[in-house]
Amino acid sequence: MEVTQEKKVFDGELKLFKHQSRATKTPMNFAIFVPKHTVGEKMPIITWLSGLTCTHENFVTKAGALKYAALNKVVLLCPDTSPRGANIEGEADSWDFGLGAGFYLNATRSPWAENYNMYDYVVKELQEILSTFEYCDLAKQSIMGHSMGGHGALTIGLKNPELFRSISAFSPICAPMKCAWGQKAFTNYLGNEKSEWQQYDSEYLLKNSTSKTPILVDQGLDDEFLENQLMTSTLEGLTKTSDHPINLRYQPGYDHSYYFISTFIEDHIHFHCRSLH
Amino acid sequence: MEVTQEKKVFDGELKLFKHQSRATKTPMNFAIFVPKHTVGEKMPIITWLSGLTCTHENFVTKAGALKYAALNKVVLLCPDTSPRGANIEGEADSWDFGLGAGFYLNATRSPWAENYNMYDYVVKELQEILSTFEYCDLAKQSIMGHSMGGHGALTIGLKNPELFRSISAFSPICAPMKCAWGQKAFTNYLGNEKSEWQQYDSEYLLKNSTSKTPILVDQGLDDEFLENQLMTSTLEGLTKTSDHPINLRYQPGYDHSYYFISTFIEDHIHFHCRSLH
Repeated sequence: MEVTQEKKVFDGELKLFKHQSRATKTPMNFAIFVPKHTVGEKMPIITWLSGLTCTHENFVTKAGALKYAALNKVVLLCPDTSPRGANIEGEADSWDFGLGAGFYLNATRSPWAENYNMYDYVVKELQEILSTFEYCDLAKQSIMGHSMGGHGALTIGLKNPELFRSISAFSPICAPMKCAWGQKAFTNYLGNEKSEWQQYDSEYLLKNSTSKTPILVDQGLDDEFLENQLMTSTLEGLTKTSDHPINLRYQPGYDHSYYFISTFIEDHIHFHCRSLH
Repeated sequence: MEVTQEKKVFDGELKLFKHQSRATKTPMNFAIFVPKHTVGEKMPIITWLSGLTCTHENFVTKAGALKYAALNKVVLLCPDTSPRGANIEGEADSWDFGLGAGFYLNATRSPWAENYNMYDYVVKELQEILSTFEYCDLAKQSIMGHSMGGHGALTIGLKNPELFRSISAFSPICAPMKCAWGQKAFTNYLGNEKSEWQQYDSEYLLKNSTSKTPILVDQGLDDEFLENQLMTSTLEGLTKTSDHPINLRYQPGYDHSYYFISTFIEDHIHFHCRSLH
């Protein structure tokens, strides 16, 4: 575990880590924001999952979230969006697959299965790392994300209700089995069998969930990906037919960018704090 | 005037403009944040000047300022840090001179004098542009900046007390005539005559200022440039010998980055609002 950067911000500490990962068999990067705290004090954790092309740094740089994490004494954990350094042929060829596009699943198909295991990385390996930080209260965790990371937050949160008390997403990919981004990723990472895809499909997971983890979703109405890739109408349908507590908010005029995220991130952190504190 | 980007953020509008400048004889870029307002409503303006290597976008992306501009109904204006496209030999050779390093002065030496006129660009040309935006109250303006832009804010603010009601800076270059960054820039842009340099030296300007424009400066104590380039001790000396209202605050543990700026930008906007509202 190497600390590659350390910054004081909002009276807390932002640290960037680099480490050799068991799950991906590559070096991995993550950022963590640690609010000011007293010795021995344990704080809840919110994991943030970023979208396509992003890294572990986009959120801490652009979302304006650190202030609210500091005020509410919540640790923020921000993993990278894929392994880096697997050097698989073709992994850098497109922006919506491979590097920066791990889709938070465990790949089962060659040549991706060896390294592209972001699901295990987030759900198992990062949890083990958090357990070594004495300021983390592992019993109090939530998860949120943006776009591909919104898909990650919804699916990982729904599959692990004992780990995450609340789930939120900005502009999530709501129906990856139906959109081009998801179909490309699932076909390459998981093969053609649709039954394999369902375990990473938030529509399927929501329909079959017995937990009642509260969900908040914000979606900009001027988002260029809304209709063809995010397919938020699928989630909207589920808010009517399912009894899962989902608060889906459409925000007029906002697009897919971090400006949108920065506008509503305070809301999301307060939403999670209601489950965490 | 071309709008190259338009984003809804904090219920207001962030616009990026590109236009052919009279002052620099090149295309110039600037960003403007316009809070939500009613038809005919006029709002105060704070100009932000960025530091070395930055563009018109760093501040709006990373400082977390837009929320406070929106809440306080203040327009934010963020110019680029130099002309782009003059294509002068050597202008891209170093990160602390030329492109991204206009130092907010009017160059008098060949080959820079034709284009590197950021002082006129900020003080005259941008003011004319603002006057065409019906939501701008040109009688209510303040100026702030970071590092080289802190130098810009101090010097431009002190030289134009009728234009700017308050001045603030993060980690400003406080004594450009004494540090390597300033000496390199002043020698190349202005020649060897020190009397030419003084008009852009905040130490000289403060000593000779008759105005009492209030100044707020925040300086991180872990700033890697503090001793050799920023020379904040010069400003600290002036807080003791001059009766100019200067509030210089040292912030332990903070460095030169936008994480530092994001931590205290709310303070700076409130400081300016006391003069503007």
